[in-house]
Amino acid sequence: MTERIIKVGIVGGTGYTGVELLRLLAQHPHCELRAITSRKEAGTPVADMFPNLRRRVSLRFSEPAAAGLEKCDVVFFATPNGVAMQEARALVDAGVRVIDLAADFRIRDVAVWEQYYKMKHACPELVAEAVYALPEVNRAEIKKARVIANPGCYPTSVQLGFLPLIEAGCVDDGHLIADAKSGVSGAGRKAETHVLHAEAADNFKAYGVGGHRHQPEIAQGLARAAGHPVGLVFVPHLTPMIRGIHATLYARLTKTVDLQALYEKRYAGEAFVDVMPPGNHPDTRSVRGANICRIAVHQPQGGDTVVVLSVIDNLVKGAAGQAVQNMNILFGLPEETGLTQIALLP
Amino acid sequence: MTERIIKVGIVGGTGYTGVELLRLLAQHPHCELRAITSRKEAGTPVADMFPNLRRRVSLRFSEPAAAGLEKCDVVFFATPNGVAMQEARALVDAGVRVIDLAADFRIRDVAVWEQYYKMKHACPELVAEAVYALPEVNRAEIKKARVIANPGCYPTSVQLGFLPLIEAGCVDDGHLIADAKSGVSGAGRKAETHVLHAEAADNFKAYGVGGHRHQPEIAQGLARAAGHPVGLVFVPHLTPMIRGIHATLYARLTKTVDLQALYEKRYAGEAFVDVMPPGNHPDTRSVRGANICRIAVHQPQGGDTVVVLSVIDNLVKGAAGQAVQNMNILFGLPEETGLTQIALLP
Amino acid sequence: MTERIIKVGIVGGTGYTGVELLRLLAQHPHCELRAITSRKEAGTPVADMFPNLRRRVSLRFSEPAAAGLEKCDVVFFATPNGVAMQEARALVDAGVRVIDLAADFRIRDVAVWEQYYKMKHACPELVAEAVYALPEVNRAEIKKARVIANPGCYPTSVQLGFLPLIEAGCVDDGHLIADAKSGVSGAGRKAETHVLHAEAADNFKAYGVGGHRHQPEIAQGLARAAGHPVGLVFVPHLTPMIRGIHATLYARLTKTVDLQALYEKRYAGEAFVDVMPPGNHPDTRSVRGANICRIAVHQPQGGDTVVVLSVIDNLVKGAAGQAVQNMNILFGLPEETGLTQIALLP
Amino acid sequence: MTERIIKVGIVGGTGYTGVELLRLLAQHPHCELRAITSRKEAGTPVADMFPNLRRRVSLRFSEPAAAGLEKCDVVFFATPNGVAMQEARALVDAGVRVIDLAADFRIRDVAVWEQYYKMKHACPELVAEAVYALPEVNRAEIKKARVIANPGCYPTSVQLGFLPLIEAGCVDDGHLIADAKSGVSGAGRKAETHVLHAEAADNFKAYGVGGHRHQPEIAQGLARAAGHPVGLVFVPHLTPMIRGIHATLYARLTKTVDLQALYEKRYAGEAFVDVMPPGNHPDTRSVRGANICRIAVHQPQGGDTVVVLSVIDNLVKGAAGQAVQNMNILFGLPEETGLTQIALLP
Repeated sequence: MTERIIKVGIVGGTGYTGVELLRLLAQHPHCELRAITSRKEAGTPVADMFPNLRRRVSLRFSEPAAAGLEKCDVVFFATPNGVAMQEARALVDAGVRVIDLAADFRIRDVAVWEQYYKMKHACPELVAEAVYALPEVNRAEIKKARVIANPGCYPTSVQLGFLPLIEAGCVDDGHLIADAKSGVSGAGRKAETHVLHAEAADNFKAYGVGGHRHQPEIAQGLARAAGHPVGLVFVPHLTPMIRGIHATLYARLTKTVDLQALYEKRYAGEAFVDVMPPGNHPDTRSVRGANICRIAVHQPQGGDTVVVLSVIDNLVKGAAGQAVQNMNILFGLPEETGLTQIALLP
Repeated sequence: MTERIIKVGIVGGTGYTGVELLRLLAQHPHCELRAITSRKEAGTPVADMFPNLRRRVSLRFSEPAAAGLEKCDVVFFATPNGVAMQEARALVDAGVRVIDLAADFRIRDVAVWEQYYKMKHACPELVAEAVYALPEVNRAEIKKARVIANPGCYPTSVQLGFLPLIEAGCVDDGHLIADAKSGVSGAGRKAETHVLHAEAADNFKAYGVGGHRHQPEIAQGLARAAGHPVGLVFVPHLTPMIRGIHATLYARLTKTVDLQALYEKRYAGEAFVDVMPPGNHPDTRSVRGANICRIAVHQPQGGDTVVVLSVIDNLVKGAAGQAVQNMNILFGLPEETGLTQIALLP
Repeated sequence: MTERIIKVGIVGGTGYTGVELLRLLAQHPHCELRAITSRKEAGTPVADMFPNLRRRVSLRFSEPAAAGLEKCDVVFFATPNGVAMQEARALVDAGVRVIDLAADFRIRDVAVWEQYYKMKHACPELVAEAVYALPEVNRAEIKKARVIANPGCYPTSVQLGFLPLIEAGCVDDGHLIADAKSGVSGAGRKAETHVLHAEAADNFKAYGVGGHRHQPEIAQGLARAAGHPVGLVFVPHLTPMIRGIHATLYARLTKTVDLQALYEKRYAGEAFVDVMPPGNHPDTRSVRGANICRIAVHQPQGGDTVVVLSVIDNLVKGAAGQAVQNMNILFGLPEETGLTQIALLP
Repeated sequence: MTERIIKVGIVGGTGYTGVELLRLLAQHPHCELRAITSRKEAGTPVADMFPNLRRRVSLRFSEPAAAGLEKCDVVFFATPNGVAMQEARALVDAGVRVIDLAADFRIRDVAVWEQYYKMKHACPELVAEAVYALPEVNRAEIKKARVIANPGCYPTSVQLGFLPLIEAGCVDDGHLIADAKSGVSGAGRKAETHVLHAEAADNFKAYGVGGHRHQPEIAQGLARAAGHPVGLVFVPHLTPMIRGIHATLYARLTKTVDLQALYEKRYAGEAFVDVMPPGNHPDTRSVRGANICRIAVHQPQGGDTVVVLSVIDNLVKGAAGQAVQNMNILFGLPEETGLTQIALLP
């Protein structure tokens, strides 16, 4: 199967997850980019908007209707929330695999989804079928999926950080705390005042403390691992960098456990999760541009609070890279295919 | 007394707290800068090193011995840890008030200090006498002090954030969590690799999770307020901005309380603590260059975890500004004197 | 006259020049802020939008019609281009002095203005009357003006840098080059994609090489000094910082001159222009938040090309600070009144 | 020959050009990293210092003497100036090709080199033999070289920008101006105060206007192209970003020429020089992490001054990437081998 070329379409490629997908797919040895759609930019060469792609991506944005997406093997939705749910049905019926980088298929409880995303869901039956695709949790299910819900950026870093503790049942999972910090690209490429350089540079702030859409997504994933609902306080912060998420996680231990061994064993064999040696503090630049999550686990002053540090590039392991990883799984390719970029440091 | 001019000396003015002291004192209506010492830079005009002070500070750095510090009314130590403890005795004996911006007199338990600061304390008897000077806690004591231990930057933001909860006895103070983020100027002006622009920009990382010198300082202050020892997990992070600390604090409520009212009442009348309206998220730039701590208090999803957001400028309310505030108290001036700068935004 | 309180109105205070005006005027000893207008934000406390002003500015944005601007002594327009020209006439007729921080009254040749600003000028007769107010050039005229055209940010830094050479007639003024770099706040607080943090951080680019609105403004000022038209290539660049302009100016010497002496003599007595000693390179942070232009002049390798380095804070000496300086001149106050802030460094 | 594996050694791999070489060579299909030396870090795994290389580079730093460099096919010197000239002789005699990323072999006039680099040259005879290796100028010579002088970062961007004009003889080459802006990584990984984050962030400044080491290197390259000495004013600036150089070049036209066609023709067929369409302004992020120089050429207002914008990543096309490109040429590999990374945007 690895000889085969996968025909790829992208819906909505003018945002950051779109250009990142293009960067990765243009270097993927088994992909052929067939179409990338944008109503607004139809006709414009992609490389005119994103000059890093000059000489590497010759495609133009096309009208969705004319893109021939139904002839692709896989279509990525790099669109705002609420788009994929409109269009996935037809593609699935045409035999196309769908990978949604937005949130349309992430929350199994449609009522909760509608509450947090403030719209009516257009396609609840695909929610039921879709696979929430965190490969380190459920790659077997991903392999067979027709609709992939690619996890959110915060949820990827927080779940990978908490999972060993939850699965081992060694912490009070009714009182988990995730203090997460994101670079500004996490807010997307929309022109909004609060993410202007003059507003967001040299500044640090929390936001959404009262309630953030990623809270139910994380809680759902952790509850699945725990076998019961969990309690989670999730506080996101905006930090003045372009890429990167740093999740600092707190939980109270309920039994004695060798934390380092627990984490190393849980992620042994995982190509894209790196458990660092004891005493380390991963920095976000160590994953800049790379599809990897680096984790360190601490138990300060030997107390009963465990502190987990988990970093990803929000656009790679937190979005486009994980989407390509999921595509590789879907099509039976080695998981690392096209994902061997080394992080850019400095 | 406000007519009087205070004769001021500064020991060690080549770091960031030094230049910030100069910025504030040069605009203070009741101060006369008499001397600023630096062995290494003796003879150099201060404004040659810090060109923002051109035309505003005409002083040159002088040799400590020749500086005439003993004729000053007050001497600030803007030195590395371990300097003030060598020189404070002689100044105090000469009737000079001493304000140490470093850590020499902050920890009352000398053994703990020696463990964390890895040196022998040269002057334990002044530790016993010194006043840990957080004006919002103990301004009466400050007024009479001969030696002022100016609080650290992290400790100022964390204590001001936690104090209303601790004093009200409404949280489990055995399991406090302070997740704090600092701008890079907090590391000082020493040339060290990890705070180079090419290392620290566009990057985010935790550090010192295993143990940081500000942990015992914060724990001491909170224990004093609680009347008993407290449990505190303190996780500092380096964030790519120049100035600013954002402390995100977590505690579990043990009784029902009107949190907003609690905070507003606690800090009513405080010129330099601003409790923001419900639902707000203070950003660090809202205090950039200003001597103020802004605080917001949240109770996400109505659960039993309280989240406090507390921001300061680490060089102002976290260092030089608070030192001037303490000087104002010492000399009977209105506390706001010379401290009315408005934060620079954007 | 200095006892008098000046009644001040601001039209359009939701942008960066607006909040900067508020920061300065709130600290000005002879001003009373009477009104600040914003159609969109009418009723909102100014400090809700700009929390650095909490406790310092209690005003709310008001509807322009209800603001009572005609009862003010002076009205600042911190509006987009094209607004002041609509409203200045009525205010002038009511005896109010008008200071426009936008470009409506800067270009004396209305046809050129209309070409560059792509709209019809609503009030050409006030263009003829208005004073282009660079105090270091024409403070006598400013004193008597009814309408002040406050210079642009680039034009301030470039003109102050070139003027001594032009006035001395010692360079080929047919081939001047101004390579200018601006922080992102120069683009204003409008939500536009290219100034998002994720676009503008860690990036550097030129823009408008083919033609920028500040080119004719600068050329007009230099021509006035030269007594004849000048040739100017102006290349602006966007640099990833919040505030600051650094203009690097190049001109070919046509006669031998003591450049350092020329500059020092030209700006002797100027409170807000600082000619640095030979060999210096001013940095933008040395003027961050301060109303000052720092200049250094070089003659590399003793050749015939002079290189002038000129830095300002685009929001202060390049906008709001210069506007307050002009207000001080208009009302007979010492020019430094309310403008003694020291630059924030680091 | 492409089947062959090149045995590679690196001397001095603890700086930014070193880690960048490692990033590129670890992804190069025909290289085997045999040794990387550091006296200070001998024994430390490279990935402990640069965690982006975890799981990708298993090498440890080794003592130079024990490294077996003489058995390598090629040795890169990623050292400070003055090291390669001490060690190159022995390696060359052992049949090893030497690529120096520092400046030891760049300037053919040893007296000029000694003046600018303030040391005595240890190996003048290799200077005479060494090839200044800008592939777009002299790849035929590079192919046969035993010692490669890899061009400096500024010189690469400035020469590639000016060369078409110089070679065409269409500008006054006695009065060239290069206004260049560099990210902070250009200063290396040495701990120095002026490149601390708290000093260099949110700041912009010129430096070395009186004389910079890259001035004679650029002048030498342009003189070679012109066939006679050229006049060059070179003004470097420090800009608050990690990577990237933006050179803005000015020259006066002496004849009419189709500039766009001139540039496109000159660089037709060059894999690593991208002449952008008319009217473009390349940004540095469009080359971040990629081995490419993007150039745009402008003639503002149709005047006689040509403005060239030239951007590179100082660590890639300005250092490690160009070194790998030169290695590919030396060993007869396609020039793009291992250099197909797409720039990271955003």
